[in-house]
Amino acid sequence: MGSNITEMLRLRAQIVSEALSRTVFSEKSDIPALLRLQEAMAHGALGGGKRLRPFLVLETAGLFGVVESQALPAATAIEMIHCYSLIHDDLPAMDDADTRRGQPSVHKAYDEAIAILAGDGLLTDAFTVLTAPGNYSADVAAALVHELSRGAGSAGMVGGQMMDLYPGTLTEDEIAGIQKRKTGALIEAAAVMGGIIGRASEDELSRLRAYAASVGEAFQVVDDILDVTQSAEALGKPAGADDEAGKATYVSLLGLDGARDRVGLLTKKAEEALAPFGERAVVLRDLAHMLADRSH
Amino acid sequence: MGSNITEMLRLRAQIVSEALSRTVFSEKSDIPALLRLQEAMAHGALGGGKRLRPFLVLETAGLFGVVESQALPAATAIEMIHCYSLIHDDLPAMDDADTRRGQPSVHKAYDEAIAILAGDGLLTDAFTVLTAPGNYSADVAAALVHELSRGAGSAGMVGGQMMDLYPGTLTEDEIAGIQKRKTGALIEAAAVMGGIIGRASEDELSRLRAYAASVGEAFQVVDDILDVTQSAEALGKPAGADDEAGKATYVSLLGLDGARDRVGLLTKKAEEALAPFGERAVVLRDLAHMLADRSH
Repeated sequence: MGSNITEMLRLRAQIVSEALSRTVFSEKSDIPALLRLQEAMAHGALGGGKRLRPFLVLETAGLFGVVESQALPAATAIEMIHCYSLIHDDLPAMDDADTRRGQPSVHKAYDEAIAILAGDGLLTDAFTVLTAPGNYSADVAAALVHELSRGAGSAGMVGGQMMDLYPGTLTEDEIAGIQKRKTGALIEAAAVMGGIIGRASEDELSRLRAYAASVGEAFQVVDDILDVTQSAEALGKPAGADDEAGKATYVSLLGLDGARDRVGLLTKKAEEALAPFGERAVVLRDLAHMLADRSH
Repeated sequence: MGSNITEMLRLRAQIVSEALSRTVFSEKSDIPALLRLQEAMAHGALGGGKRLRPFLVLETAGLFGVVESQALPAATAIEMIHCYSLIHDDLPAMDDADTRRGQPSVHKAYDEAIAILAGDGLLTDAFTVLTAPGNYSADVAAALVHELSRGAGSAGMVGGQMMDLYPGTLTEDEIAGIQKRKTGALIEAAAVMGGIIGRASEDELSRLRAYAASVGEAFQVVDDILDVTQSAEALGKPAGADDEAGKATYVSLLGLDGARDRVGLLTKKAEEALAPFGERAVVLRDLAHMLADRSH
């Protein structure tokens, strides 16, 4: 690979974590209940993670010469949305997960009511970050809010979670439809948000969306593959959990080899979408390969 | 009163309900799970209610000559936020309410997971409405998103709900602090959002905020009074529920007479804030009086 992608991800994850912490505690409260809420939000937002969505915002903005500090608020906002979704997904009424990234999930570390509110708080505050004076000009801010809320809302991520909980016929189309909303929509939003900050053309935004759509689907297929091939320790969550829950996965439908083929095809499509950006897109290309080849 | 405020509220509530229905079903899904999500969102958004916050948006925008149709998307968005908060507040882990406005709450009519997602969907989609192309110019849209997300987020409504669930010392200051966040912040946002659409000056926005702060606190004091003086039937929820739950209320702290005095004082303050708007503000003045004198 042309870039040290793993190291770049690690460094940027650290920068994003610091920005998340600053944001959650930006008005650190001296009221005990509010401080507890902020701590629960931090617990849900700061437990590690690849910070893939923020990385995409930073890198796609970088294609257009946008410096990291300028893309960072949008990167922070989308990660707040991602983290809220994990907090709510872990709730007993949803996936009922006691742990997340090897730590107690928020409703286990605090309680259910606090987990619901911490999620609501992260979700709502993300839009405050995007529109805070000084972060973005009004036209960019409004476009970012629209892109992020579309990706995260009932037609996007929330709708995907609903389809995942109440699946219909488990055809390949339906599995792809769930994935496209549940994880794909927010990954697309991330890539497009970077383009919006960089004032990309409509054609460039379409290419970024196509890149992210392929990367997002490949990411999910790899997740499904790892769920059946990796140990719980390597994953930081119970292995085979999807299968046990009777959930639709790419592996249950395509088989392991078929799923691996699909990853290869999607990675090629991701590269093709980036073609006009040439050498500037080396990191995004490497990212697609790294995500396809990852083992956890 | 100089206006038929009750009739105006009723008419506008109907217009807002229709706008909410159009918004929730704007992309009516043919995927069963997504249609079910939209129906659950509609159940939570369309069960009646005074539509006080949308009314404030429409009326404060009207002070500046903004026509109803132009303020309607913002009015719809803030009601989506209000309704999401009711859906989540009713959850078993929160207030555990089986009914809302005489109907089954969303988690009773559907299930807990759907109620969580319906709330998340309404909350997120509200920001899509504010930034949808054609609704507002970018500077107005960005300001609306900022005002609404601040009022609804961890420093506003979500924080107030957290303080309500985990109260500290039940002094008058603390009760006021809970109210100011839990219900006051969104009522303030409503009044200010109308001003933003009307391109009000900073001084005018401050006056609208002061008006709404007084009306919002008076509204809560009256709620507390009604909770101990009215029957369950008249309220549409169990009477004395606050007292039973050991919650801090204005009545438990100030007594009935003290609470009534406070309503009078706050209504006077609300009128004073409107003084510079003269006759244009007659409906807002009548609203303050009507809310103070209401019996349900």
